[in-house]
Amino acid sequence: MSILVVGSVAFDSLETPSGKRERVLGGATTHFALSASFFTDVRVVGVVGEDFLPEHEAVLTAKGVDTSGIERAPGLSFHWTGSYLTDLNAADTLATDLNVFAAFEPKIPASYLDSEFLFLANIDPVLQLRVRQQMPKVKMVAGDTMNYWIAAHRENLLKVLAELDVLLINDGEAKMLSGESNGLRAAEGVLALGPKALVVKHGEYGSTLYSNGKVFRTPTLPLHEVVDPTGAGDSFAGGFYGYIASQPELTPDVMKTAMFYGSVMGSFAVEAFGTERLQRTTRAEIDARFAELKAISHL
Amino acid sequence: MSILVVGSVAFDSLETPSGKRERVLGGATTHFALSASFFTDVRVVGVVGEDFLPEHEAVLTAKGVDTSGIERAPGLSFHWTGSYLTDLNAADTLATDLNVFAAFEPKIPASYLDSEFLFLANIDPVLQLRVRQQMPKVKMVAGDTMNYWIAAHRENLLKVLAELDVLLINDGEAKMLSGESNGLRAAEGVLALGPKALVVKHGEYGSTLYSNGKVFRTPTLPLHEVVDPTGAGDSFAGGFYGYIASQPELTPDVMKTAMFYGSVMGSFAVEAFGTERLQRTTRAEIDARFAELKAISHL
Repeated sequence: MSILVVGSVAFDSLETPSGKRERVLGGATTHFALSASFFTDVRVVGVVGEDFLPEHEAVLTAKGVDTSGIERAPGLSFHWTGSYLTDLNAADTLATDLNVFAAFEPKIPASYLDSEFLFLANIDPVLQLRVRQQMPKVKMVAGDTMNYWIAAHRENLLKVLAELDVLLINDGEAKMLSGESNGLRAAEGVLALGPKALVVKHGEYGSTLYSNGKVFRTPTLPLHEVVDPTGAGDSFAGGFYGYIASQPELTPDVMKTAMFYGSVMGSFAVEAFGTERLQRTTRAEIDARFAELKAISHL
Repeated sequence: MSILVVGSVAFDSLETPSGKRERVLGGATTHFALSASFFTDVRVVGVVGEDFLPEHEAVLTAKGVDTSGIERAPGLSFHWTGSYLTDLNAADTLATDLNVFAAFEPKIPASYLDSEFLFLANIDPVLQLRVRQQMPKVKMVAGDTMNYWIAAHRENLLKVLAELDVLLINDGEAKMLSGESNGLRAAEGVLALGPKALVVKHGEYGSTLYSNGKVFRTPTLPLHEVVDPTGAGDSFAGGFYGYIASQPELTPDVMKTAMFYGSVMGSFAVEAFGTERLQRTTRAEIDARFAELKAISHL
């Protein structure tokens, strides 16, 4: 079945202990779409500028991603500059040039309206809600957000949370959103705000699913080098939601398996700058890492 | 089979977000022994002062722990004062009164010499090595250490590491000991220093076993309240090593299962101040949490 993902398509300039890259293809939607494309059909809604060339679009279309919902606007694409030199688990934002993204108004092509799954990547909750309202027949809605919206746009964000089947955020966001410092209480606090299920990501330590009153923990694969953590969470979300969309029914077992695929896809994403590693990932590699993740966590 | 544990028996004065306690029974050896006592026979070597009363000793003997190796010295017992008000994952040491512990010279009773398993809790590596040399026939040696010994007594510590079948430390200690910031590289760096296997504890996020070139990750149980993290690592070690000592053979499966029991015992330890929760833990509770830990991590 098809996933419609709405959010940023961007260029990232990055500095990590492994090196430096200027203007590599990035954006939450790009990482999500590439990751999910291994499991199901993916359709993208976003906006780019004149610097988004056919070679950039080809990164997505080569994986079968439908890019007909990517709008072209005069000017430059969203450009984020960040550094992980201090801490690989937390980016220092050096510059955020919104460019054409500042006036982003998601437009959903008619050909996308039959998408069964909707993913609202991290954007202004007002836009997330507007997209959600344009997709009334969707079977499932998942989404992401960040500290900025939690702190400064809480009322709008709460309206989005009430619409979500699954919210995917990190530890710090869960604690901020709930006002609780204990992980379990934070998760319960977030669930009380509306989402039916919650995935909390713990960076290098794994992630936890809270769903139907149950908890499920997934580890990460040990990696010798995290080259670039940018997009790890979006790649996790792509693997998680892509697997769910590929299954005939949403059972607890499907949710758990989806957590494992999320972790697997995140492990690829961080092994190279930008989308490099996801571009050359193979299905055989995914299957091998899934088996490895099970082997390192199951008695 | 019997475990001999050597290290501190102490009183702790603690402040956490859940409250305050003065001079509760603590010490690495106490937490370890109580935890391991659910799985196997435990013998303790330590030193206490005149403030260590029959009621304190009874906490250990009530669980069948052999306390004949606890030496009485004139003066007061080791007393640690710490606060977790800033961060439940990292204690602020407010005072360390070594008292009788300053002159601790472990003496192993003749009745302990047939112990098959030795646990060197976190003490001066010179003493750890001396104990190890007094137990040449032991079947397995495991141990702990801390940042202080890593930073200021490295040469002595390296001699201990060469003797260990299993070293149990936390993330920060593994990174400090190896000089590596990546978790996997840090573990490989530590293993290169001598221990045959390594357990790295990630606090609330679980723990990882590195053994025979393989990795095994264990989550933690979600808890609504961490009342007092003191002794969580020692309780983990007690469950881990206690289970190993209870098994006829040391197989990879035994090591993995031991990781789960370590996590289970750590989950009890933090639910009350000092040894309170371990004192009233039942075997049925341990079995229930073991099953729960499996349920929340296995597909």
